[in-house]
Amino acid sequence: MDRESLELRSTITADGTLRLNLEPVVLPEPGPGQLLVRVEASPINPSDLGLMFGAADMETLALEGQVLTARVPDRSMPAMQGRIGQSLPVGNEGAGTVIEAGPDQQHLLGKRVAMFGGAMYARLRLIAVQDCLVLPEGASAEEGAALFINPLTALGFIETMRAEGHTAITHAPAASNLGQMLVRICQADGIGLVNIVRSPEQVALLRDLGATHVVDSSANSFRQDLTEAIAATGATLSFDAIGGGEMTSTILNAMEAVAARSMTGYDRYGSAVLKQGYIYGALDTGPSVLRRGFGFSWSVGGWLLFHVLQRLDPAVVQRMRQRVVEEMTTTFASHYTARITLEQALEPETVASYMRKSTGAKYLLTPQQS
Amino acid sequence: MDRESLELRSTITADGTLRLNLEPVVLPEPGPGQLLVRVEASPINPSDLGLMFGAADMETLALEGQVLTARVPDRSMPAMQGRIGQSLPVGNEGAGTVIEAGPDQQHLLGKRVAMFGGAMYARLRLIAVQDCLVLPEGASAEEGAALFINPLTALGFIETMRAEGHTAITHAPAASNLGQMLVRICQADGIGLVNIVRSPEQVALLRDLGATHVVDSSANSFRQDLTEAIAATGATLSFDAIGGGEMTSTILNAMEAVAARSMTGYDRYGSAVLKQGYIYGALDTGPSVLRRGFGFSWSVGGWLLFHVLQRLDPAVVQRMRQRVVEEMTTTFASHYTARITLEQALEPETVASYMRKSTGAKYLLTPQQS
Repeated sequence: MDRESLELRSTITADGTLRLNLEPVVLPEPGPGQLLVRVEASPINPSDLGLMFGAADMETLALEGQVLTARVPDRSMPAMQGRIGQSLPVGNEGAGTVIEAGPDQQHLLGKRVAMFGGAMYARLRLIAVQDCLVLPEGASAEEGAALFINPLTALGFIETMRAEGHTAITHAPAASNLGQMLVRICQADGIGLVNIVRSPEQVALLRDLGATHVVDSSANSFRQDLTEAIAATGATLSFDAIGGGEMTSTILNAMEAVAARSMTGYDRYGSAVLKQGYIYGALDTGPSVLRRGFGFSWSVGGWLLFHVLQRLDPAVVQRMRQRVVEEMTTTFASHYTARITLEQALEPETVASYMRKSTGAKYLLTPQQS
Repeated sequence: MDRESLELRSTITADGTLRLNLEPVVLPEPGPGQLLVRVEASPINPSDLGLMFGAADMETLALEGQVLTARVPDRSMPAMQGRIGQSLPVGNEGAGTVIEAGPDQQHLLGKRVAMFGGAMYARLRLIAVQDCLVLPEGASAEEGAALFINPLTALGFIETMRAEGHTAITHAPAASNLGQMLVRICQADGIGLVNIVRSPEQVALLRDLGATHVVDSSANSFRQDLTEAIAATGATLSFDAIGGGEMTSTILNAMEAVAARSMTGYDRYGSAVLKQGYIYGALDTGPSVLRRGFGFSWSVGGWLLFHVLQRLDPAVVQRMRQRVVEEMTTTFASHYTARITLEQALEPETVASYMRKSTGAKYLLTPQQS
């Protein structure tokens, strides 16, 4: 069988050049527990862009033959030390059809699977069966392409909430595909959710989905609206994908203002209510600024799906995966605004579009097209 | 018996005036479980200054008769709402002699005790016996004045370290009375400690105490020195009393640099080593700035002695209190540079001195002097 693939690779060289290219590779025959999958669809998530472009200056993108290059500023090179000279495959998740299977996995030949684990921006992917979800008969690759990161992240928020004793969640920015999944989950499960969005259009989008508490950070009344929504839900836990700036700080201060309403006397150390903020993304890579008007009972931390899945009870993770497959076309449906080939992913003008990170624009790679 | 006392009180009025005065009060007879104590010594801790002066502009201090006043800027008044119009007693801890006791506490008459619980800047304090430590025969009030906050905070750091699975600590700023206690405890208990100080003089001070790892944040080589000290100790936990600025961020980035040395491959999400920073003070009340070069496995949170004591096993807290009394003149000895009366505590020039918060200047109130 022909196991020739093309893999999108990202390399940063010691002299400060980012190189993106399509690398021809020949994959080995799948062994026990392995599948060889023809990758048919893979989303471009914010979490993919960091690995693809590192700290490159996007103003310097240039296509030289079939290689896309960009300059990495000198000041950013120390943070890139760990990857210098390595040709790194890209693409966290995807879906495709099993074209070859290890001796113990022959029953999966011809099935469509969702996959997780990197190197998905490729024609073919050799993968362990435990990193796959077998999709129901008739499911399209597009439906299965993004069943890991966003769905498990959204469900992971809920499990984190339960494990740490909170009862409601504040989420920013909430109009993303992930945010929309969270709206549907919280609605189905009866969990209070405060959605922070960035425009009146996004308010309308989430209200149409049935969201109860949607506050617009571009409104003058933002802080007041946020405080009232937190009061209504009792949220003491937040998830913030922006990272830089003051979003988590603003949320924690609003939570403290709500907690202060129930205090009987003045306490200059603030309320005893624990306010937990998690930063799970870096849409803004600038520093996080905490204006500590929220007393001493607070915590802000990083939240990473891979770490959380390792910490959770395996039975809980199994239940999460089960739910994702059952609700793939409803709760966990993703919407794409554009479909591009591997070759198009290297065109500077296309890169500029999918780098914009604005909610609403969502790209799907279709590696079998050319 | 005469139970007339004077209490130092702090009030912020609705029109934005801070008022500090000595309020004459008559205390009731001690009931069961209570002691009436003649307060002989009480330290001025950074944690007292916040309650005494709130958000007042220290440039506007003025003594009007026997009342010290200052203006609270309009922009700071919202944060003061919880205390408007309340005459708040001040002084977290102190020591003195029992002059009257509840019917079940007569055996404590004439004993010297260390006390904790506010309202210590006063001639007399009516207090529950469980908020006292009975001092050994011959102990002076000065020796007993500061046996709660700094000693239990230092021991609380150690218990937090154990409870959360860390093995060494980074502390800033480390030359304070509290920092010196921590040096002695870690030395006695064989715990790795990275001391961050602010001058070469403070480096010498801690080295004289026997500290192994002392790094000077005013040195050009600070970040490098810090990283090497963290590598040598394996510290993944830090305590920061500065709060504002980048100290905790700098520490976490140094911890990540150390963790990265043991990583076998590049991971753009950073190391999986959990880096925990606690902020336990607000010497700098400005925003905390986190430059998130430390991956996703991190947490920064508030740390407050009162909350921690409530969370710890009561047997652990009892063991901590026992150790404090046993080592009061060694590990937990405090040093004072000035002794002042209640009346002097209201003089603007004296206030300016004890507000300076610079390590090395430490004031003791002696309420029986006048």
